[in-house]
Amino acid sequence: MDQGKHFLFIPGPTNVPDRVLRSLSQPMVDHRGANFPEFSKPLLQDLKKLFKTEDGEVFIFPSSGTGAWEATLLNTLAPGDRVLCSRFGTFSHLWIDMCERLGLKTDALEVEWGEGVPLEQYRKVLERDEQHEIRAVLACHNETATGVTSNLAGVRKVLDDLNHPALLFVDGVSSIGSIDFRMDEWGVDCAVTGSQKGLMLPAGLGIVCASQKALEARKQAGLSRCYFDFEDMRATNADGWFPYTPALSLLYGLRESLDMLFEEGLDNVFARHHRLADGVRAAVRGWGLSLCAKGPEWESDTVSAIYVPEGHDAKAVIHNAYHTYNLALGAGLMQLAGKVFRIGHLGDLNDLMCLGAISGVEMAMRDAGIPIEPGSGVAAAQESYRKAAAAASK
Amino acid sequence: MDQGKHFLFIPGPTNVPDRVLRSLSQPMVDHRGANFPEFSKPLLQDLKKLFKTEDGEVFIFPSSGTGAWEATLLNTLAPGDRVLCSRFGTFSHLWIDMCERLGLKTDALEVEWGEGVPLEQYRKVLERDEQHEIRAVLACHNETATGVTSNLAGVRKVLDDLNHPALLFVDGVSSIGSIDFRMDEWGVDCAVTGSQKGLMLPAGLGIVCASQKALEARKQAGLSRCYFDFEDMRATNADGWFPYTPALSLLYGLRESLDMLFEEGLDNVFARHHRLADGVRAAVRGWGLSLCAKGPEWESDTVSAIYVPEGHDAKAVIHNAYHTYNLALGAGLMQLAGKVFRIGHLGDLNDLMCLGAISGVEMAMRDAGIPIEPGSGVAAAQESYRKAAAAASK
Amino acid sequence: MDQGKHFLFIPGPTNVPDRVLRSLSQPMVDHRGANFPEFSKPLLQDLKKLFKTEDGEVFIFPSSGTGAWEATLLNTLAPGDRVLCSRFGTFSHLWIDMCERLGLKTDALEVEWGEGVPLEQYRKVLERDEQHEIRAVLACHNETATGVTSNLAGVRKVLDDLNHPALLFVDGVSSIGSIDFRMDEWGVDCAVTGSQKGLMLPAGLGIVCASQKALEARKQAGLSRCYFDFEDMRATNADGWFPYTPALSLLYGLRESLDMLFEEGLDNVFARHHRLADGVRAAVRGWGLSLCAKGPEWESDTVSAIYVPEGHDAKAVIHNAYHTYNLALGAGLMQLAGKVFRIGHLGDLNDLMCLGAISGVEMAMRDAGIPIEPGSGVAAAQESYRKAAAAASK
Amino acid sequence: MDQGKHFLFIPGPTNVPDRVLRSLSQPMVDHRGANFPEFSKPLLQDLKKLFKTEDGEVFIFPSSGTGAWEATLLNTLAPGDRVLCSRFGTFSHLWIDMCERLGLKTDALEVEWGEGVPLEQYRKVLERDEQHEIRAVLACHNETATGVTSNLAGVRKVLDDLNHPALLFVDGVSSIGSIDFRMDEWGVDCAVTGSQKGLMLPAGLGIVCASQKALEARKQAGLSRCYFDFEDMRATNADGWFPYTPALSLLYGLRESLDMLFEEGLDNVFARHHRLADGVRAAVRGWGLSLCAKGPEWESDTVSAIYVPEGHDAKAVIHNAYHTYNLALGAGLMQLAGKVFRIGHLGDLNDLMCLGAISGVEMAMRDAGIPIEPGSGVAAAQESYRKAAAAASK
Repeated sequence: MDQGKHFLFIPGPTNVPDRVLRSLSQPMVDHRGANFPEFSKPLLQDLKKLFKTEDGEVFIFPSSGTGAWEATLLNTLAPGDRVLCSRFGTFSHLWIDMCERLGLKTDALEVEWGEGVPLEQYRKVLERDEQHEIRAVLACHNETATGVTSNLAGVRKVLDDLNHPALLFVDGVSSIGSIDFRMDEWGVDCAVTGSQKGLMLPAGLGIVCASQKALEARKQAGLSRCYFDFEDMRATNADGWFPYTPALSLLYGLRESLDMLFEEGLDNVFARHHRLADGVRAAVRGWGLSLCAKGPEWESDTVSAIYVPEGHDAKAVIHNAYHTYNLALGAGLMQLAGKVFRIGHLGDLNDLMCLGAISGVEMAMRDAGIPIEPGSGVAAAQESYRKAAAAASK
Repeated sequence: MDQGKHFLFIPGPTNVPDRVLRSLSQPMVDHRGANFPEFSKPLLQDLKKLFKTEDGEVFIFPSSGTGAWEATLLNTLAPGDRVLCSRFGTFSHLWIDMCERLGLKTDALEVEWGEGVPLEQYRKVLERDEQHEIRAVLACHNETATGVTSNLAGVRKVLDDLNHPALLFVDGVSSIGSIDFRMDEWGVDCAVTGSQKGLMLPAGLGIVCASQKALEARKQAGLSRCYFDFEDMRATNADGWFPYTPALSLLYGLRESLDMLFEEGLDNVFARHHRLADGVRAAVRGWGLSLCAKGPEWESDTVSAIYVPEGHDAKAVIHNAYHTYNLALGAGLMQLAGKVFRIGHLGDLNDLMCLGAISGVEMAMRDAGIPIEPGSGVAAAQESYRKAAAAASK
Repeated sequence: MDQGKHFLFIPGPTNVPDRVLRSLSQPMVDHRGANFPEFSKPLLQDLKKLFKTEDGEVFIFPSSGTGAWEATLLNTLAPGDRVLCSRFGTFSHLWIDMCERLGLKTDALEVEWGEGVPLEQYRKVLERDEQHEIRAVLACHNETATGVTSNLAGVRKVLDDLNHPALLFVDGVSSIGSIDFRMDEWGVDCAVTGSQKGLMLPAGLGIVCASQKALEARKQAGLSRCYFDFEDMRATNADGWFPYTPALSLLYGLRESLDMLFEEGLDNVFARHHRLADGVRAAVRGWGLSLCAKGPEWESDTVSAIYVPEGHDAKAVIHNAYHTYNLALGAGLMQLAGKVFRIGHLGDLNDLMCLGAISGVEMAMRDAGIPIEPGSGVAAAQESYRKAAAAASK
Repeated sequence: MDQGKHFLFIPGPTNVPDRVLRSLSQPMVDHRGANFPEFSKPLLQDLKKLFKTEDGEVFIFPSSGTGAWEATLLNTLAPGDRVLCSRFGTFSHLWIDMCERLGLKTDALEVEWGEGVPLEQYRKVLERDEQHEIRAVLACHNETATGVTSNLAGVRKVLDDLNHPALLFVDGVSSIGSIDFRMDEWGVDCAVTGSQKGLMLPAGLGIVCASQKALEARKQAGLSRCYFDFEDMRATNADGWFPYTPALSLLYGLRESLDMLFEEGLDNVFARHHRLADGVRAAVRGWGLSLCAKGPEWESDTVSAIYVPEGHDAKAVIHNAYHTYNLALGAGLMQLAGKVFRIGHLGDLNDLMCLGAISGVEMAMRDAGIPIEPGSGVAAAQESYRKAAAAASK
C-alpha cells in the first residue's frame, strides 16, 4: 500500500503543499549577510497579520510548539506564581504539567472531556482572587485530543468583567491559521503556535506572539532562561537578525505558506476549514456515530474525535486504515484510548481529499466489524460539500 | 478550489510520485563525461525488463509518444508500403492518419468504438494477402479514447497461423507499465510508449522497443529520417552515449520510476491497476451507467470511458468536476464528444485516491442533473476494494 | 572527488539554476484542462521576446536541438532543394550532414576551423545563382566546436544586397539567450535553439522561431513530416494547446528561466556572458596559449576552444580536470581532437565559478605536464573581472 | 551579482548538498504511525557513529546549537554549581555567559584569542579543587570566531591525571562531522552539535550526545527544564518516538547527510577538510598575511580567521566580497571586529569551490586597497591541492 498519495489525516503534522515543500529546498545563505533583513523583516511583520495583532511582537524559535509553551511561561512568570488553568484533554493537560514542572502553582480545573474552557468556573475562581495572586490564565483554544474549540472572547470577557489583571495565555497550536484568532481584539497576552498545523509546514518552528503587557511582565520573570529569552530575540529581530542561527529552510517555507494563506485570504481559509469539518461531521451523523465534542458550540473545525460504538476498539480502525488503506488517523489519547479515533481536517486539504479519507474510514470500520452502511458517510459529506459549493457560487 | 491536492484522473499525464518529482531536480552532468555510461547503460538495460524482452533493443527519444510512433514507421517502412490497421478510437485513428501523411498505403478496418483490434478481420485480410504485400500490422494495445484493451497474443496468433511475415507494431502508450505486455512472447516488432503514463513521468520521452527483425527492416526503409534514426541511437547507445543531448532530467526520473516499478514488482503493478479499475467499474455499475467498452473482454485497466444517460451532456460533468471539485477527467473525443467522460486510473494511484475521484464524479454528475444516488458508486467501489484487500491478505 | 559542487564547464548542458531545478518538480496537470492556456499562451508569447521578434511564431517541440534543425528543414523545403551552407566545425557540419540525409542538395563551403560563416564566399555563390535555385541559406550563429561566432547581420546584408529571396536559417543553439540575437532586424526565417544552453534548462525542448515567410514556404515543402509539423502546432498553439502531450516539466522550467532572464534583463545577460568570456580569454593570454578562434571578430562569448601547446594532449587535461578536480570540460571534436579543450561559459554562471574553473584548468594542465605558471590565468582573469566590476559600478 | 552559485564561505550554515536539499522536500508522515520507528531508530543509532560512541546516548532537539548547550547544562547541573571554563573567542564566551545566566558559578579563565583551552591552567585550577566542587569542565573544541581547535585528549588527560570527577562538556558545533571527535576515547560526558555545520543541513536541530555518567548526573540537576529534558527523550526514543513533534524534514535531511558522510567515510571527510584548510592556509602565506591562530597546533580545519594588514579594514573586504563577487565571508567578532575576516571551509566543499572563494578574497582585498599580488594565494593553494591529490592517488 505504498503507491499513490499517503492520506495524512492526523491533526498535525498536516499535509505540506507542494509549493511549500519545494521552497524548503532552497540553498542556505548567511543569516548575518547584508541582504538577510530584506527577507526576515517582512516575514516577522507578516506573521503579525496571522495573529491579527498590531501591538504584539512575534518570536520564532527553532523548536516545537512545546518549546513555545515553555518560552511563554519562562519569560513572564516567576517560580511559585499562581496560574489558572483547565484540563479537558491531553494537550491542556500537558501545558498544566509543564507549569508544575517549572515550579508554578496551578489552579487546574477538571472539565469533562468534550467540553472546553469553563467560563463560569474561571469567573468564580478569579472573583475569589481578590488579591490578584493569579498571575496568568491559560486557555487551550483548540484541544486536539477531543476536537473541542473554546470560547476565547468569553475568557476575555470574564477577565474584563472582573477587572482582573492576570495575563491571558492561549495555546493556539491547532487553531491559529485554521480557525479565526484575534490577538488584539481578545486581549491575548501570549499566543502560542507551531509550524506543523495551520501553517502547513514541517514541525520545527515554535512561534509566540506576545503583547506589550506580556513583554513588560518579563521584568519580574524569575524562571531561568536563555535559549527562549524574548529579549534576546527583540534585541536582534528589530533589525532583521536572530540571536542564534535560525532554522532557515523552515523560514523559507514559512514565507511560502504565509503567501499562500494571504493569497487565499485568511477568512476564506477559515471558511474552507469550516466547510471541510462540516462534511466530516455530516459523515459522522451519516454513520450514526457521535463526536467527543459535547455540543455544536464545542465542535472543532480542525479535528474531530469520533466514538466507536461500545464493544468496538478504535485502535482496530486506526490499524486497518493505516495498514490496508494508507490512511493515517489520530488515536484516542489517555482516557479516550481505544474509544475514539480522530480525523484531522486542517491544513492543505480539499473536499475530495476529505471524501477519500472518509471512504477509508468507512472501509476501516467495516473491516473492524463496526456495522455501518457502506457509503453512508460519504454520501452525507458529499451533499454537505455540494450545498456549500452551491452557496459559495452565488 | 486551488487548495489541497489536485485530483488528476485523465489517462495521462498521470500523477508523478513525489520520489520521481524530486529526482527531476538533480543538477546536470556532462552526457559525454567518463562516468555517464555508468548511469545510462543500466538504464537502457532495465528498460528492456519493462518490455519483457531479451532480444529487443530500446531507444529513448526526447519526444512525445507521437514521435515514437513516427520513429517506428520511419525506420522500418518505405513510401508506398502497405500497412494493415484498424480504427476504433482517436488514438488508433491518429496513428493511421500519420501513416497516410507519411505516404504509406493503409488497409484501415473500421471497428465499432468500444471494441478493439478485430482479429477475424485481420485474419481475412492477411489471408488474402498472398503476395505478402502488407509489410506491417498495427495494433493499438489500449485505446485511450474508449477504454478498450486489445488482444495482442491473438494478433500474433493470426500472423503465426498464416505464416505471414509482416512486422507487428504495437501502440502501448497507455498500457506498457500498467497492463501486462510481453514483447518477446507475443513476437512484437516495435512497441511504442511514452513517459507520461505507466512510467509515471512527465511527458518528454518517446520510447521504442524494436526486435531484431524490425532493426533488419531498416535497411529497406526509404522514409527520410535523421532525428529518429534507430541506427544513430544504436551506434552510440552501445557504449552508453546518445547521438545528441538526451533529456537528462527525464532520464533521472526514469531511473527513479523504474526503481519504483521493480520495487513494487511488475506483476503487482498490473494487479494494482486491475484492482483499481475493478473498483471504478463497480462504481459505474453502482450508478447504473455503462462503459464504452462493449464487454468485459475489452475493458481497460488504465482508463474507463463512461456514457452519461441520454439527454445529458458529459461536458457538464467534466466542467463541474474541474471547476468545483479540483478533479480533472478526460473528455469524450470525436464521435464520443459530450457522450462520455473518461476516468484515467493508471500510474501512481491507490484506493483512496480513486474513491476521492469517484466521489468527485458523483457530485459533478448530480450538479449536472444526472439522477444518480449519492454514495452509490463509492459504496460499490469500497466493497470491491475491501474484497480485493481481504483476498490479498490471505 | 564527489563532494561539493560539480564544475560543469561544457558548452551545454549548462548549469541549471536552483530556482529552475525546483520548478521542474511541480506536479502534472491536464494539458487539455480549462486553465492550461493561462499558462501556455503567455509562455509562447514571452519566448518571442527571447528571439526579438514581433512577426515570428515560436514552436516548442519535445526534442533536442537536433530535432529543431530537422523541423526547420522538413517544414520549408522539398527533396532536391538547394541549400547554401558552410562547414567550420562539428555542428555546422552536422546540420549539413542532416540536409544531405534528408535529400537536399547542399552547396557546402569549406571554411578553415576558427573562422565562421564566409560572407564573401556566400556573396559569390548567391550572385551566381541568378535563377534563385538556392532555396535556403544556413548559418551557424555560434559554432560550439571552435568557439566562433558568425556575423548574422552580414549574412542578411549579402542577401539584401543581392535581392536574393532565399530563406535564412540560423542555428542559434549555443547563442540564443546568451549572445544577442535579433530575429526581425536580421531577417532570419527560422532560428533554432534548444533548452539546455542559454535557457539554463535540461535538454528536451527543441525550439524554432519561424518568420511568416518561412511559414508560407511550408506549402511547397515536400519532405514528409508529422511529429515536427509547424501547422499542427499553429492550429493548436493559437488557443494555448499542443497537438500532442507537451513536455510539461520542462515548460514549467522554461517559465522560470524566462522569468530569470527577463528579471536580469536580456542586455545584462549578454553583458555578463561577455564579461565572463573576457576573463576566460584573459586567462588564456595569461597562460601564453591561443584560442581556436582566429581573431577577436570570431571570438565566442559562450565557449572558448583553447589549443594546448604542440606535443601535449588536450585529452589528458580533460581527463585530469574530470577525475581529479570534479571539473567537466569540452573535448576537441573531429580534426581538433586532442588539440583543444573547450571551456563552456554560458548559462547560470558568475565570476567566482569561472575563476574556480580556470584554477581547475591550471592544475589539470600542470598535472599533464604543460608548463604554465600557477595562478597566471587566474590573476589575469581576476583583473579582467575587477575592471569590469569597477566599470559597471560607475 | 545574483547569477550563478552563491559562494557561501561562512563557518555555518554551510552548503547543503543537492541530495540533502531534495531530501528536505519529502511529504510529512505521522510521527506516531506504526512505521515511524523503522525510520527513527536507525537514525538515532547511526548518529552515535558520528560521535564515535558505544555507550553514549544521542538526543535530537528541534533547536539550534545554543539550545543544545542549554540542554546540557539544564540536565546535569544545579543552580550554584561550579563550572570550569575558558574564554578565547565569541563562542566560548557565549557558553560561559549562558552558564552565568542560568545561575551557575563559573571559573572562567581568560585566554589570549588565537589559542584554545589552556591545559596547564585547567590543571592548576583542578588541582586546587581538592573538594571536587567543580562539577563540570567546559571545552570549546573549535572556536569559530578565531579558527582555533583545542586539544580535547589533553583535557581528558588532565582530569585523569588528577582523578578529578568533573563532567567534561564539549562544544563541538563547528567540529563534529568535520574534525575528528572521539566521545568514548576522550571520555566526553556531553558533546553538543548543530545541524548546520559538518552535518551539511539547514539549522534547526540541536544535538547532544550524553555519557551514562552525564545521564546519571541528571538526578541532582536542579535547573528547571521541560522542553530540553533528556529523560522525556529517553523514555520515548527507546521505541523510536519523540516526546513532541520532531522536526521531520530536518530528520529526513539528517538521514541523507549521514548516508553521505558514511559513504565518503568519516576519516576521508576529516582528511578532505584538512586538505581544503591546508590550501586556504597556503593562500594566506601566499598573500603574506597571518592567521589569528597562534601556531600550527591551534589551526582549525573548519575555519580560518585572517588578519588584514594594519591600517586596513576587514569589513571592507567582507563588503566587497558580498556585494561585488557573491561571496559570503565571516566577520571579525567582538575584539576582532574589523581586524579579521573569516573563511569557513567546512561542509560540502571541494578544491575548486575553495579556489573560487580564494580568488574572490583576492579581488575583494585588492578592491579594498590591500596590496596583495593577484593570483598569489590561488597559486599557493593550487600547488597545495595538487600535491595532496598526487599523494592521494598513490
